[in-house]
Amino acid sequence: MHTLNVELGTRSYPILIDAGLLGLPGVLDAQVAARDVLIVSNTTVAPLYLSAVSAALQPRRLLPVILPDGEAHKTLVNLSRVLDVLIANRFGRDCAVLALGGGVVGDLAGFAAASYQRGVALVQVPTTLLAQVDSAVGGKTGVNHPGGKNLIGAFHQPDAVVIDTHTLSTLPARELRAGLAEVIKYGLICDAALFTWLEAHLDSLLAGDAAALAHVIRRSCEIKAAIVGRDEREHGERALLNLGHTFGHALEAATAYKEWLHGEAVGAGLVMAAAMSQASGFLSAADAARVRQLVERAGLPAHAASVSPQLLLEHMRIDKKVQGGRIRLVLLRAIGSAFISDDYPQRALQGTLAAYCGDAR
Amino acid sequence: MHTLNVELGTRSYPILIDAGLLGLPGVLDAQVAARDVLIVSNTTVAPLYLSAVSAALQPRRLLPVILPDGEAHKTLVNLSRVLDVLIANRFGRDCAVLALGGGVVGDLAGFAAASYQRGVALVQVPTTLLAQVDSAVGGKTGVNHPGGKNLIGAFHQPDAVVIDTHTLSTLPARELRAGLAEVIKYGLICDAALFTWLEAHLDSLLAGDAAALAHVIRRSCEIKAAIVGRDEREHGERALLNLGHTFGHALEAATAYKEWLHGEAVGAGLVMAAAMSQASGFLSAADAARVRQLVERAGLPAHAASVSPQLLLEHMRIDKKVQGGRIRLVLLRAIGSAFISDDYPQRALQGTLAAYCGDAR
Repeated sequence: MHTLNVELGTRSYPILIDAGLLGLPGVLDAQVAARDVLIVSNTTVAPLYLSAVSAALQPRRLLPVILPDGEAHKTLVNLSRVLDVLIANRFGRDCAVLALGGGVVGDLAGFAAASYQRGVALVQVPTTLLAQVDSAVGGKTGVNHPGGKNLIGAFHQPDAVVIDTHTLSTLPARELRAGLAEVIKYGLICDAALFTWLEAHLDSLLAGDAAALAHVIRRSCEIKAAIVGRDEREHGERALLNLGHTFGHALEAATAYKEWLHGEAVGAGLVMAAAMSQASGFLSAADAARVRQLVERAGLPAHAASVSPQLLLEHMRIDKKVQGGRIRLVLLRAIGSAFISDDYPQRALQGTLAAYCGDAR
Repeated sequence: MHTLNVELGTRSYPILIDAGLLGLPGVLDAQVAARDVLIVSNTTVAPLYLSAVSAALQPRRLLPVILPDGEAHKTLVNLSRVLDVLIANRFGRDCAVLALGGGVVGDLAGFAAASYQRGVALVQVPTTLLAQVDSAVGGKTGVNHPGGKNLIGAFHQPDAVVIDTHTLSTLPARELRAGLAEVIKYGLICDAALFTWLEAHLDSLLAGDAAALAHVIRRSCEIKAAIVGRDEREHGERALLNLGHTFGHALEAATAYKEWLHGEAVGAGLVMAAAMSQASGFLSAADAARVRQLVERAGLPAHAASVSPQLLLEHMRIDKKVQGGRIRLVLLRAIGSAFISDDYPQRALQGTLAAYCGDAR
């Protein structure tokens, strides 16, 4: 078992990574101090892994809440459903919420844990590549609003993140590709060697090679844990993790969270961020091309045909990264070197949107 | 102008107290860094003070959200309304939420500030005695659930608390009395001299004497600021501030937040806590009588005729203070000395509820 730590003083917590962890006696059990546990999952994941998780947590009082699957269900209404179950069953402040699923389940269950009784324990058991490499780590929780992605939420760190890489064996190919977008992101912002490794091993990853997947999960968690440990509340460096996300969140919101998986939107967002960086004179054409090629090889869309440039821009303006009216973007100087700026040519943004959105291909 | 500080490291903030602060040029202005400010108020307070607050904050972009008045409106639905306005008007992460009103407005606006974009700035401008002496200070925010009081919320400290004691001149007598319950509470938990002072000056307070009110506001804020500074997240000492509140919250929830003002429920809760402490052998009969007499002289109800003992107990069991199935109560050893315990005779609790609830007077 591989163990990493997110170092946050008294709120530090472990990330456990290995194949088969959910079936290993004592592992999950040791990470859950509570006697009463609400397990939040969805209709896709629960039939696959709820029984294993429940068995691992015996003899606690366990209650499941099974949500519909998909980003469109990460809403205040479903948050309220989870809270209703906690309250109706009189769960005390010493209970725990366990998130079993992908990013939607983790974000929503995490926000429920953050806001129930002003904060109860949370354990993340991510079952998608995207959640394992990104969303389950770092304490960002929340729900979407028709007006924008993750606009309502809280920072609430888990007590533990338990990653059973075996769960990827049941992950649909589309979801696997979506998760790779976040892995590519880590390479782009701070690890050129990881990016090069991805270029060399992408086919193994897409084929579901367990060793290759384990490698990128570990490296992604290492990078994220280090950044979160230095900047939990995103006052500085952590914002680099939003590379591609201002474009991506806007794509998701503009299509009512129904068309794109989050990782797919991030993939397109990475290509747009690279194109923007090139058009602004920060990034070489060769590096921008490498970004686009890797994203496309990963089977991720680089173009948003159904969204007009104008609509995307409108949604970018209500994303969380807007300050003082200007859209702050994470841009690239090189592969492995990102920075944050709101000082770029507006025509670079307009040109990028025109090139990658709508029918103007 | 009297200034206190809540000492929380980088998140420390001032409490400004004086008569006429809202009309004093520059005072409120200096506490609001944001350019975009959402002012949350209610239908009672807005007609009285919204124009003064708006004038003090010119030339910012100001938007008001005016909620219906009353505890029954401190709901997820109204939280959602506030968030909708923030989002529809594209308020950025650098905006501020200003709470202008009593505890309901402050708690709901505070939770909106806590959860919008995972946290934006908050300024508390409390206009009721209860909010000025208690709820505006310390960062507890939240909304009610039909199942229980404040079950959904967050810790989110304000940037400043601006208390204009002139606003009490328009406060209904019933609201003034409700606020006194929290002042009596401070005396009971840690300041016997304050309690004795209240016994001597209650008539001045009830008559609205400005100097007497200013005295209790300052002293209450001093006590609360010190306790919050030592125990922000209620891991220990801060729980003493819940004296009377487990009974009180249950009274409010059992009557659907429509019958009792929060302070009234706390007043009755203080009498019940004192009676419990006496019945458990912790508090002298003489001290318990002093508690009941002061609460009753303040015009607060000591008896809950419309709620049966059984119903109150059920609601107490879902309050936040339950851990491991036992109801933890704040009890009294003496006036000015409170402690927390779940080790008391069950018959003392049953006897207290039988004596103070339902028709069994």
